[in-house]
Amino acid sequence: EILQQIQEFFTATRSLHQESTENEGLLLGKRVLITAGPTREAIDPVRYLSNHSSGKMGFALAAAAAREGAEVTLVAGPCQLSTPAGVRRIDVISANEMHEAVANALAQQDLFIGCAAVADFRPASIAEQKMKKQDGENEMHIALVKNPDILAWVAQQEGAPYCVGFAAETENVEAYARKKLERKGIQMIIANDVSNSDLGFNSDNNAVVAISADSEQHIATNTKAEIAKQLIALISSKL
Amino acid sequence: EILQQIQEFFTATRSLHQESTENEGLLLGKRVLITAGPTREAIDPVRYLSNHSSGKMGFALAAAAAREGAEVTLVAGPCQLSTPAGVRRIDVISANEMHEAVANALAQQDLFIGCAAVADFRPASIAEQKMKKQDGENEMHIALVKNPDILAWVAQQEGAPYCVGFAAETENVEAYARKKLERKGIQMIIANDVSNSDLGFNSDNNAVVAISADSEQHIATNTKAEIAKQLIALISSKL
Repeated sequence: EILQQIQEFFTATRSLHQESTENEGLLLGKRVLITAGPTREAIDPVRYLSNHSSGKMGFALAAAAAREGAEVTLVAGPCQLSTPAGVRRIDVISANEMHEAVANALAQQDLFIGCAAVADFRPASIAEQKMKKQDGENEMHIALVKNPDILAWVAQQEGAPYCVGFAAETENVEAYARKKLERKGIQMIIANDVSNSDLGFNSDNNAVVAISADSEQHIATNTKAEIAKQLIALISSKL
Repeated sequence: EILQQIQEFFTATRSLHQESTENEGLLLGKRVLITAGPTREAIDPVRYLSNHSSGKMGFALAAAAAREGAEVTLVAGPCQLSTPAGVRRIDVISANEMHEAVANALAQQDLFIGCAAVADFRPASIAEQKMKKQDGENEMHIALVKNPDILAWVAQQEGAPYCVGFAAETENVEAYARKKLERKGIQMIIANDVSNSDLGFNSDNNAVVAISADSEQHIATNTKAEIAKQLIALISSKL
């Protein structure tokens, strides 16, 4: 048993070594801007709208890009993850704040990866005081207005970086993703099916298909760290 | 400096000892049911409505009640806190799930503390697939229906336990709290002002006023652990 442990130790050491030498500086000298996590849209001082994005995929991409030598800025919605080594992190709450942070950081970026699950809509107004339930009131409506489309906005800027988006879908995953690629005017979309609760949101694993105008590459189920590494290799080959 | 460290060590040891002997078994043989945290109300498979409750106050109350000898059941909405020693924890997501868990655990409870920030409303229907943004659609409405009022429901049951509620308000704190006490038919309400961002939601500190039909007791700013200890002492004197 001791022998086995020693063997395992050396195997682990070797794979760690392989891991570090496998990084080939694919993004050396490149500037990469990544958004990650959910956004949280205030209804009043205590209530909000949000979504189940954990931020894990975006943080894994930031880590993978940094390991390949990129100068990485990560704009993160509210999520409980530690900042990957060597990554500059900017924390935001709402889609509007994320938009502003991205706009401020966009100059001279070579690559933008919009991995955040930005809320499509936000409450039309934020109540300054906690909204009170009225007696006998059994229904309520929340009026919502559209949030800025950060990814499409980035893609439309002059001298825009190579733009990669994500499409988390529960049905017709590839068809919806391809439409999103065209509608947003971006160069690549990473689609994943979040209807499988073992993958995607909050899971440590994922399985994706990377779609560009002229290619479609499936990446089989793996850890988000490994998927991120493969995606960064794929994307860096396009820059 | 070394002397000071030794002194601090013994002071810390002494206060720890004081802490443990201060617990007087005030709730020995009592059964206590506590709800804590927010609830999360699904809009579709990825989006939800929630609120900023961290669960810290409810978890502190569960810990304090257990230290006073109670048999504690804690029904917790989604929050990232570890279960206090000796407490039986039931995790739930939505208000409906919380209501069901409370109903199942209610028999023979001596005390019910509704500390959870239960969403007043939930989406009228949960979309089975992720809702799609339509082109050109700039506004949206979410129709909401009232959630069960768990606290009022418990208070109305035959042989109901002593019922304590919480009122997190941003204005007219005591007036709103007293109205809530009467409307819900409960025995005590703990009011706190969440407009001060240093206290209440997500903070480790709180300051509250405990209101019953014939008394009003202010508990000054302190850690939630200490506030919980004082509240449990106050409540146990009423049982």
